[in-house]
Amino acid sequence: MKRFLAATALALLPCFALAETPCCSTGDLGLIIERATGSLLVVDRSEHAAVGRIEGLGDMSHASMTYSPDERFAYVFGRDGGLSKVDILEQKIVARTIQAGNSIGGAISDDGKLVAVSNYTPGGVKVFDADTLELVADIPAPGKTIGLADLPGRRFIWSVWDSGEAYLGDFSGDEPVVTSLGHVGKNPFDAVVTDDAHTYLIGLFGEKGVTAIDLWQDPPKPIRFLNDYGKDQEDMPVYKMPHLQGWAFSEGQFVLPAVGQYRLLWVDRETLKDTGTTEVHGQPVFIIAQPASPYVWVNFATPRNGVVQVVDTRTHEVVKTLEPGKAVLHMEFAPRGAEAWVSVRDENKIVIYDTRTFEKKAEIAAQAPSGIFFTARAHQPGL
Amino acid sequence: MKRFLAATALALLPCFALAETPCCSTGDLGLIIERATGSLLVVDRSEHAAVGRIEGLGDMSHASMTYSPDERFAYVFGRDGGLSKVDILEQKIVARTIQAGNSIGGAISDDGKLVAVSNYTPGGVKVFDADTLELVADIPAPGKTIGLADLPGRRFIWSVWDSGEAYLGDFSGDEPVVTSLGHVGKNPFDAVVTDDAHTYLIGLFGEKGVTAIDLWQDPPKPIRFLNDYGKDQEDMPVYKMPHLQGWAFSEGQFVLPAVGQYRLLWVDRETLKDTGTTEVHGQPVFIIAQPASPYVWVNFATPRNGVVQVVDTRTHEVVKTLEPGKAVLHMEFAPRGAEAWVSVRDENKIVIYDTRTFEKKAEIAAQAPSGIFFTARAHQPGL
Repeated sequence: MKRFLAATALALLPCFALAETPCCSTGDLGLIIERATGSLLVVDRSEHAAVGRIEGLGDMSHASMTYSPDERFAYVFGRDGGLSKVDILEQKIVARTIQAGNSIGGAISDDGKLVAVSNYTPGGVKVFDADTLELVADIPAPGKTIGLADLPGRRFIWSVWDSGEAYLGDFSGDEPVVTSLGHVGKNPFDAVVTDDAHTYLIGLFGEKGVTAIDLWQDPPKPIRFLNDYGKDQEDMPVYKMPHLQGWAFSEGQFVLPAVGQYRLLWVDRETLKDTGTTEVHGQPVFIIAQPASPYVWVNFATPRNGVVQVVDTRTHEVVKTLEPGKAVLHMEFAPRGAEAWVSVRDENKIVIYDTRTFEKKAEIAAQAPSGIFFTARAHQPGL
Repeated sequence: MKRFLAATALALLPCFALAETPCCSTGDLGLIIERATGSLLVVDRSEHAAVGRIEGLGDMSHASMTYSPDERFAYVFGRDGGLSKVDILEQKIVARTIQAGNSIGGAISDDGKLVAVSNYTPGGVKVFDADTLELVADIPAPGKTIGLADLPGRRFIWSVWDSGEAYLGDFSGDEPVVTSLGHVGKNPFDAVVTDDAHTYLIGLFGEKGVTAIDLWQDPPKPIRFLNDYGKDQEDMPVYKMPHLQGWAFSEGQFVLPAVGQYRLLWVDRETLKDTGTTEVHGQPVFIIAQPASPYVWVNFATPRNGVVQVVDTRTHEVVKTLEPGKAVLHMEFAPRGAEAWVSVRDENKIVIYDTRTFEKKAEIAAQAPSGIFFTARAHQPGL
């Protein structure tokens, strides 16, 4: 009993110490990546407040994370190849391994048992036990791995920049079964699975166009579309590669960033036909659908990254331009859409907007914040 | 400090007492309604286990619930008009009010501040402070209120059985603003908001057909469709009214139960045109989309309620028939789709299926279980 009490006190001290009332549920918590300091800011959505900081995560300049199904643990993928398991309740790192020289993201299996990491140096995918971070499988690749995502049934999907191939890995049996899905195009730079896990969309950098793979087909086959976009325009230098995890799926459409251009591309989800473009403030980076609404929010590459635009998916028109501050790096919505949280790196703050009125509801101080990750992500396929 | 320790121990005793390691995250918890005993079974999804029971909730024969954004509290709507606020961590009722003579459901506002209840006796909607359960607004209605759902911006929508009217209530200002959306048809029996909060679908009992309201229109107008379904068949007696909260939205379609018939109706989401029917085992009650898949699962009204069927939304064909046991009342999916939990009332158990292999993974004992509610619902609009 004594041990139990001690463990209890230790485990919950950070929550209890910072909040007025006991705060031990995890549904409205989140972690924000602080790039420069290699730390994570723990936030409480309901309170609009920071409730702690976790340090010692290494190079977080391009970091992302995914959550365990119980929302207690986050798996943080650092640019330096570090994979860290963080306990959001105890607010500390509980396991950490430098698993590669340069990694760019990861995913957790649908049952929460496996964590996969996609690596640049060396290329390939490493799969770890989610409990212990012990290596379970090491899948080599002929180059840099990008666009790693989870699929139902303890499977993952990824693409390779150098060879232009996509792969499906099934980890439900005793031994992993990895299948090539064929050539998807030249230099895929990022890829994403739609919210219904139906389609894997792959952005190409080495040529114009996008590739879609229907994952419900047997066998799935790559289909190219948008091969002609922007052929009549001169491309600008790409200041920042767009993130496709932010691709929005709304009103029967995909909304895609035009690489190297100041525009969004609209594509019919069923036919993969171009249905329009929207001129925007800069080169789009994230295009994120506001839940329970017809809107997407867009941020932009440097040097035009002080602005966020809100676009109506029905009319394809910009309906609002916001100026949260210098260097807007990411946006995350309250899961039911009432608020948008925006990270403003060069002003060391998070700005919280009411999505209905566009009024600023609150600000939270943060050290050079980039990615914002709420625990509700634990329940979404493909994140 | 002493008080802090005591509070901590008390608050977390149930979790800690039952688990090997501290368990205070709430992402993989759930509550199951035990009809006959007026109790709630607390379950841990990851462990496939019951971790406690909460008693004293009154008449739970048609009960439902909704969760606070932090996943700590559930608001339980009992048939006897009881509204109970339950703490899932402390495993106890923290507030309870008998707010009407007969109530049938409720919803929580997108910001988690207000809980609304729809009542039969007397009719109308009552709105409560989510913290204290104090009455905030009492909206009368010319009859029984059905199909209450939350909309973004602290709003709720509902319909009235007797008058056939739908209403929109805006609770974002100092005083509630209630607007009639007009006549939607004879005897609406249930209604639901689509997952993107775009459309309010209303099932009619007093006449053939379904009504849709486009909530993004200004002002929103009721549109009737499916007016002719089943006109060539003789209707059977309706053994159990279908639940529309289970209506599935998949592959650009709505999937609806044909009231009084052994069939599903498929409707194009965009055009509201009939796109097919599926003959099934009995009168459908719940039709629920398996996340990240092309499938819906269907259960049936008494006396054919020992079966669950899985239907492919692409082909409209039954692909699997399962027999979980006597009186299947509800199904709930793990949020990313890996498992289906099925309540089997007359065999006092919950059966857990692997959705990929259809194998039975586990069973949990429960007293005459009906509705299964996982905490991940806290993050979904319209639930």
